[in-house]
Amino acid sequence: MRAITIDKEYGNLSEMLQNLRITDRPLRELKDNEILVKMEGAPCNPSDIAFLRGMYQIKKDFPAVPGFEGSGIIIGCGKSLDQSALTGKRISCFIQDNDDGTWAEYFIAKADNCLLLRDDFPKNEAPVFFINPFTAYGLFQTALDKGGRTIVLNAAAGQVGGFIRQFAKEAGIKVINIVRRPQHVEKLKQEGETLVLNMRDKNFRQDALKMFNEYQPETGFDAVAGEHTSFLLEIMPRYAEIVVYGGLSGNPLSVDVLKLIFESKRISGFNLGDWIRQTGRQKLEEISDKLQQMFIDGILRTRIQKTITFDEIQQGLYQYLTKMSDGKVIIRAE
Amino acid sequence: MRAITIDKEYGNLSEMLQNLRITDRPLRELKDNEILVKMEGAPCNPSDIAFLRGMYQIKKDFPAVPGFEGSGIIIGCGKSLDQSALTGKRISCFIQDNDDGTWAEYFIAKADNCLLLRDDFPKNEAPVFFINPFTAYGLFQTALDKGGRTIVLNAAAGQVGGFIRQFAKEAGIKVINIVRRPQHVEKLKQEGETLVLNMRDKNFRQDALKMFNEYQPETGFDAVAGEHTSFLLEIMPRYAEIVVYGGLSGNPLSVDVLKLIFESKRISGFNLGDWIRQTGRQKLEEISDKLQQMFIDGILRTRIQKTITFDEIQQGLYQYLTKMSDGKVIIRAE
Repeated sequence: MRAITIDKEYGNLSEMLQNLRITDRPLRELKDNEILVKMEGAPCNPSDIAFLRGMYQIKKDFPAVPGFEGSGIIIGCGKSLDQSALTGKRISCFIQDNDDGTWAEYFIAKADNCLLLRDDFPKNEAPVFFINPFTAYGLFQTALDKGGRTIVLNAAAGQVGGFIRQFAKEAGIKVINIVRRPQHVEKLKQEGETLVLNMRDKNFRQDALKMFNEYQPETGFDAVAGEHTSFLLEIMPRYAEIVVYGGLSGNPLSVDVLKLIFESKRISGFNLGDWIRQTGRQKLEEISDKLQQMFIDGILRTRIQKTITFDEIQQGLYQYLTKMSDGKVIIRAE
Repeated sequence: MRAITIDKEYGNLSEMLQNLRITDRPLRELKDNEILVKMEGAPCNPSDIAFLRGMYQIKKDFPAVPGFEGSGIIIGCGKSLDQSALTGKRISCFIQDNDDGTWAEYFIAKADNCLLLRDDFPKNEAPVFFINPFTAYGLFQTALDKGGRTIVLNAAAGQVGGFIRQFAKEAGIKVINIVRRPQHVEKLKQEGETLVLNMRDKNFRQDALKMFNEYQPETGFDAVAGEHTSFLLEIMPRYAEIVVYGGLSGNPLSVDVLKLIFESKRISGFNLGDWIRQTGRQKLEEISDKLQQMFIDGILRTRIQKTITFDEIQQGLYQYLTKMSDGKVIIRAE
């Protein structure tokens, strides 16, 4: 089968792009509980870029096929599964192990990491149904569980931020949005958001302090890490929790212990793989039904800037890297 | 009334000791829900030393009376309280506000921060009943709530560590003890502890890694902070939580974001004041009954190295500072 491969990690972005290859790989035998998928498409997410640059926690043997999610049609199953019921169905799949990736013609998925898609689910959303929507859902659940009334989002113009904002709207929860560009401030205000801060504004710190004092957010969702988290931790009110789900800044956190102790604050990490394991299969399928309906109804929508073929991988990812906030680039496997 | 006072913070320890004075202070009027206590005794805890050196989160107007806990006899009440039922009773009291302290002849306590002591409660334990036992109880509850089977304690030879060990024994939970001195290793082994690590041993890191791998502790209680916490966070297993309740090292934490995210780990802060507020009065009294019984039965016991008078404050605190692990120094207010 044809697949995008890379022979090792490349810290340098342009070297990384130059070393993406299309190669021919053998398909191994299916184990119990595995599903063979003829892929239709897979996105490039920030985690894929981090993996290709060697800056991700998940490591694979090289040469490796990138891609942590995608969608396609089931064409085979391990013997513990119901072959006749599954064959021909469209699924969304996800992987976080040292195994093949989704940027390939065929992909072997663990059944627990697959979700059957309804026939009326928008086909263009299928490759990007797993990582962002479920991450947003799982994160937002943390805020709901705390019974909070206001949340903080950084990287708020991103896709996960957009989904969380939608969940917050439905739940009647206020959102303080933190972005890094003036055009994102404008965009969110046009969408009806009233609480928007630009972290590169010279008044950011004092404006943030004022807004946090007024709205007393109980939970913050942090995709940035580093100094920014330390600042959030400082200005969040007593009992607040910061949930870190990304490290866009590439920096560690420095935490003032007294802030943790005397204000009973908390920092936790979120990743989708662990969340799926903890959620359990039945609940995951219920959530999937609910999220699929929201995409079918047009309440949730992923921004997709371009769909490319394997042959266009280098220029396609270059475009993604230079205009990440324009939306996902989907790699079509046909 | 006579009280120990200090005119400002002194970062330097010997300057701090030299500037502790006995002064005469007026007693203000009682507000509703306040209790006037004729003090019998108050301990010096690490938090008192931190306060006197200006290294504590809680600040008071100067000149200030130190002391965050103590015990004595009720001699008056605010008008919302039942004067006749309360007068003459012995109580344990606690304070974390900008207000007078317990190192005084008389102390005005908020009723919510007082606990009535049973007549058979050991009189020598009365001044130290609040901070350490309840901190240990509240911390240990975190581990119970997680349903864990093994906990990690640093500063394990300290008083809070000892209480937690006792709770763990009763609950059938294993404890990995981390200490800083060879004699503490010996002491804990004599007490029957099998899992004891000295963080100053040259093999500490590899021994800790091996022990953590074998016993998979779910919760760590951290009184040290700084680099030590970063190391604990690194070697704790997936889903683990570190609860920081002290900053003995005086250093901030540096947190590797990827450890938080990809291993779904968590760091939280614990302080007694917030815990009391969240626990609620009825539950607090139930816990007080249980803990008092454990002291009466001799299951819990505080190490007390010396009882001093106001006049002995300087040499008494000097002895405490040089031999902190020998036990509490109690300041007798008679």
